Amino acid sequence: MPPSPSPMKTRPRALAFDVFGTVVDWHGGIAREAAAMAARHRIEGDWPAFANAWRAGYAPAMEQVRSGALPWTHIDALHRMILDRIVATHGLAGLNGLTAAERDHLNRAWHRLPPWPDAVPGLARLKRRFTITPLSNGNFSLLTNLAKHGGLPWDCIVSAELFGHYKPDPETYLGCARLLDVAAGELMMVACHPSDLRAARANGLMTAYVPRPLEHGAATVLPSFDAGEFDLVASDFEALAAMLEAT
Amino acid sequence: MPPSPSPMKTRPRALAFDVFGTVVDWHGGIAREAAAMAARHRIEGDWPAFANAWRAGYAPAMEQVRSGALPWTHIDALHRMILDRIVATHGLAGLNGLTAAERDHLNRAWHRLPPWPDAVPGLARLKRRFTITPLSNGNFSLLTNLAKHGGLPWDCIVSAELFGHYKPDPETYLGCARLLDVAAGELMMVACHPSDLRAARANGLMTAYVPRPLEHGAATVLPSFDAGEFDLVASDFEALAAMLEAT
Repeated sequence: MPPSPSPMKTRPRALAFDVFGTVVDWHGGIAREAAAMAARHRIEGDWPAFANAWRAGYAPAMEQVRSGALPWTHIDALHRMILDRIVATHGLAGLNGLTAAERDHLNRAWHRLPPWPDAVPGLARLKRRFTITPLSNGNFSLLTNLAKHGGLPWDCIVSAELFGHYKPDPETYLGCARLLDVAAGELMMVACHPSDLRAARANGLMTAYVPRPLEHGAATVLPSFDAGEFDLVASDFEALAAMLEAT
Repeated sequence: MPPSPSPMKTRPRALAFDVFGTVVDWHGGIAREAAAMAARHRIEGDWPAFANAWRAGYAPAMEQVRSGALPWTHIDALHRMILDRIVATHGLAGLNGLTAAERDHLNRAWHRLPPWPDAVPGLARLKRRFTITPLSNGNFSLLTNLAKHGGLPWDCIVSAELFGHYKPDPETYLGCARLLDVAAGELMMVACHPSDLRAARANGLMTAYVPRPLEHGAATVLPSFDAGEFDLVASDFEALAAMLEAT
């Protein structure tokens, strides 16, 4: 990883975090819940691959909402649409497959994803100096349940649902700043996805890149980025806190 | 206080709290900050009365927004309009009065109000079993700052600002249930104002009345209500937690 680029001109007043991948381990969480449910049905399969297949449906589904092909649909419903499409190819459909109630339960696994080990201590440390919030495409209740389940110490919950727009639409980044009553330039977006950070930067936000080398499990390919693209690059949330405390 | 009326038919899944008066002591907080600021200017006055005068402007100002006489205006701006109107009558205007920066600071005293002594331990106890959120006409950043200042352990922040409607408009109660993904009948409104609870009930919410006999200081006149009007009546949040744990 290149060293953190340009020193920041100003200190942020608030930090907005991407959630899936950045704060919580969707890959591990989904793979484990799917494996446990499949085991009860004596179904064998590649559950890390199942998790990646489920997640792979996410960006195209949101794109359908962003383009207007679908009306506003929240993530729980999009996750369920994708799940219904992939159960057959992973041996979870059919007579001995999951019941409707089990599909509902598995769909809610996205509300129970485990935080990365540094997330809770790092957020607690960042919270002492900054207002910290998720800024995620996950629906409001999903983000609220994730926080309750994982003990994420957010100051508030900000979801794309509040704006009727998904990231990377500008309404999400600017809407978050407006709700927190800070200027866009006083808000720092923290994410493991350079695409999210680039959109945040285009809307005037500060940016911090935190790579998550296990986001997709062992198969993760880290995205490329240019030195100097982001205000900070940190290996995890504790390192991010240390950098921000030093400014 | 009459005993708690009818036993509840169902247990709530989430609790939504009115904030000003119900969770935090606006009267004491504002009176103390005004007194401290006046003392620096050697201005004498009745600061509890000043707090009540400020608060008295609140309902009419919101009514102007609700009726459409004012466009959507958040509470920080409404508070400032009222403050600018009452400084003169309390000796805070004029050559030796507050500077513009001091008025800004005093206006932000609403972001620093102290919780009632039972609020934090009561909320922490309720949080173990229920999703807990403010549902207040205070703007989103104000409620977020209040929570940070007072250590209020909310699971999320829900403000009238998210709906562009002030309580008692139905959009607030129903919008809160929608965001939390619970039915209106699974959401319990908790407030020290019977009027708020009556509107919540009219929209299908469960209700808990928690009187705050010092809301307006020594001058508080508790509002009247009928036995059986509300699902629960509790003397404070710890008592409310005990009642809900017993259901």
